[in-house]
Amino acid sequence: MSRQAIFYAQSGGATSVINATAAGVILAARAVGRPLYVGRNGICGALAEELIDTRAESEADIEALSYVPGCAFGSCRLKLPSFDDNPAVYARIFDVFDAHDVGICLYNGGGDSQDTVSKLASAGKCLGYPLRVIGLPKTIDNDLAGTDCSPGYGSAARYIATATREVYCDLSAMAPTSSKVFLLEVMGRNTGWLALAGGLAHGANRKLPIMLLMPEQVWSWERCVCRVQKLIEESGCAVLVVAEGISDKLMVTGEYDWHFREVTQRGGLCSSDCTRVDVFGHRQMSGAAPILAEQFRHRLGCKIQWAVAGYLQRAAAHLASLVDREQARAVGTRAVELAAAGVSGVMVTIERLSSQPYRWRLGSIAVSEVANRVVGVPAEFWDEQRYDISGAGREYLEPLIAGESTMRVDAYGLPNVITLNNRLLAQRLPKISWRDWF
Amino acid sequence: MSRQAIFYAQSGGATSVINATAAGVILAARAVGRPLYVGRNGICGALAEELIDTRAESEADIEALSYVPGCAFGSCRLKLPSFDDNPAVYARIFDVFDAHDVGICLYNGGGDSQDTVSKLASAGKCLGYPLRVIGLPKTIDNDLAGTDCSPGYGSAARYIATATREVYCDLSAMAPTSSKVFLLEVMGRNTGWLALAGGLAHGANRKLPIMLLMPEQVWSWERCVCRVQKLIEESGCAVLVVAEGISDKLMVTGEYDWHFREVTQRGGLCSSDCTRVDVFGHRQMSGAAPILAEQFRHRLGCKIQWAVAGYLQRAAAHLASLVDREQARAVGTRAVELAAAGVSGVMVTIERLSSQPYRWRLGSIAVSEVANRVVGVPAEFWDEQRYDISGAGREYLEPLIAGESTMRVDAYGLPNVITLNNRLLAQRLPKISWRDWF
Repeated sequence: MSRQAIFYAQSGGATSVINATAAGVILAARAVGRPLYVGRNGICGALAEELIDTRAESEADIEALSYVPGCAFGSCRLKLPSFDDNPAVYARIFDVFDAHDVGICLYNGGGDSQDTVSKLASAGKCLGYPLRVIGLPKTIDNDLAGTDCSPGYGSAARYIATATREVYCDLSAMAPTSSKVFLLEVMGRNTGWLALAGGLAHGANRKLPIMLLMPEQVWSWERCVCRVQKLIEESGCAVLVVAEGISDKLMVTGEYDWHFREVTQRGGLCSSDCTRVDVFGHRQMSGAAPILAEQFRHRLGCKIQWAVAGYLQRAAAHLASLVDREQARAVGTRAVELAAAGVSGVMVTIERLSSQPYRWRLGSIAVSEVANRVVGVPAEFWDEQRYDISGAGREYLEPLIAGESTMRVDAYGLPNVITLNNRLLAQRLPKISWRDWF
Repeated sequence: MSRQAIFYAQSGGATSVINATAAGVILAARAVGRPLYVGRNGICGALAEELIDTRAESEADIEALSYVPGCAFGSCRLKLPSFDDNPAVYARIFDVFDAHDVGICLYNGGGDSQDTVSKLASAGKCLGYPLRVIGLPKTIDNDLAGTDCSPGYGSAARYIATATREVYCDLSAMAPTSSKVFLLEVMGRNTGWLALAGGLAHGANRKLPIMLLMPEQVWSWERCVCRVQKLIEESGCAVLVVAEGISDKLMVTGEYDWHFREVTQRGGLCSSDCTRVDVFGHRQMSGAAPILAEQFRHRLGCKIQWAVAGYLQRAAAHLASLVDREQARAVGTRAVELAAAGVSGVMVTIERLSSQPYRWRLGSIAVSEVANRVVGVPAEFWDEQRYDISGAGREYLEPLIAGESTMRVDAYGLPNVITLNNRLLAQRLPKISWRDWF
């Protein structure tokens, strides 16, 4: 009889709904009668033999988990070496799996984490260990290949659309005698998927003075400033939703002046500093807004306000999209079902059947087609001349944020946070920290 | 018979609930049978004779207005000169009031705006114009004298407490392999009332690794870094809620090193630049977080995440506190009632009768005791050693954010924004822009 237990882990940046995926996985494992062990801090949990036995958690707590942001079992930013470079790492992981009768590995993350899925699948074959490996999609950046959208994106998009609309209400009141421009910096790495969501702030019959600064765009200060001036002329103010990836864009093209370069190089507020490279080789990006604000103030001669949403946008479970949470949950359930049915080496995907009305179903794709790939925003989703979302972009994005959210609050009116038991399985192998492997 | 019409205007920074005060004023004016004209962009509307006739708005729209952030009729940052310095300004305002039969002036704002109330009351007496003037409190900063709290504060506090709790969930999952410190910069000018709200993120039975950096505190890098290290040691991570006023604090005390000074002076990201002084003489403050993040990264040797909430915290009507919205509304109603009963020269206040259960009532105070004053956080509300909220602070703050909010969303799941008619009264005097008076 094949190994019964399922290993599941969360990897990369957290989202508002990744715990809904965890809930889907845990309850589906119960349904198929298999033990489910969660790696503490992603794949580190496998390396350190730190496996959380979810059988200690009540069903009510697992249901409540869907509404809690962050990664309830810890995440990690850890890139596994190739099998050839360090086979001992894989031998250890499979020793741990073997010691706990693990026959299925479900790994929940973005493009970099799908690389881990791919490597584990290959290593299993090399080592002759019969492991079924399934990738579960997750990223607020929405830059994963092979899926119509990624769980986590819809909720972050809803946060950004909400913030953009609310900030417009505020700014438009202040503009006649005070600040006329507001910059909201959002995440998204090298893509503009999250910035695009700012374009949803327009109402049904109302066009707001919004500009989206997308890394996919050829940068031009002249065109950009010209557009801001036009919006101020027409509407009195302008809200700019700025993708963090803009900072790289500006640096690569040299489209910044002496002052900008000076701040960047000395202050290190931008991403030029190699000490801020994460293990995936990505640079820490946030900080475009204050630098751009300084530039716009200089070029427009008016007071500029700015905000950097940072983790707030990916942790805002109180604004989570219903569709997003449903999809996150369904992805978890499906991964267990596929693996239990013998499937391996794929990532679960979300397929769009229609936009109006919005209909979707789950599918799957070979994980090798997803790992380490980054998909940007298609040109037809935005209007380059107007720095705005296009009709096609709205059609794509609107269904992903629709619906009233069901925030669960505690006695203080704050989002309810539950405390799981997170009971670790007794260790059966020599104790080795995950850090010792690198 | 005395002049019948009421003039109302919104002044200073917007809040999530100032439109609830407007709704209270408008509906109360209807109840007492007086015409209500709103100044477009605060007192500028009186100077320019731009008066919005609210009789053109439906009751349903006025009710819906309570849920919309920003200042629906425009705000202003405008400090009136003294009567002696520029009596013509006051002569113009009273000419406009006279032309439209205005006998009551209700002005809605913070400490600087109460200065306008005070000056208008004095000028009315000098000019022999029988005007009743009432101040309506409003500020997210909660630094107004004479009132237990200010409408706008509870909602911004709820936003900050929510963001702090959500961000902790995210950060604690990332900390083992990535960022261990998160800085959330909040507003509050020279006071720490808003930073204090981060301390509400602790749960009922749970102490989170939170630190509040208050401008009221004597700054010490050594103690501060030591505390962060202790939290990381105990809990794996630390969330720092940083009052924007910290930046001034650091500059005044000289408690920053060469690098900090360099960034500040060259980048101008801090508030050292006199071109960023507003009309009230206040410096634009935001930008402490990226600079502090750089410092902490240097001193702790670990990756730091940060966010600057900016306008987001004062425009987040989707998280508005029920109590705050009720108080904002009640303040508007009471101001009309007081003025109609012949009262003048006071600001409406909120008096606390008890904290557990929370009971409050409205009161009033001479506006001269409020104008231009700033009230900081009392020492007993926070624990200086632990950089945290105290029991007394919780007892004060908790009732102000309690209760589930009733966000009103449109078909897209976004906060509903209504469009008022904002019909201007026909002008009866020569057209003069408000800018011409300064």
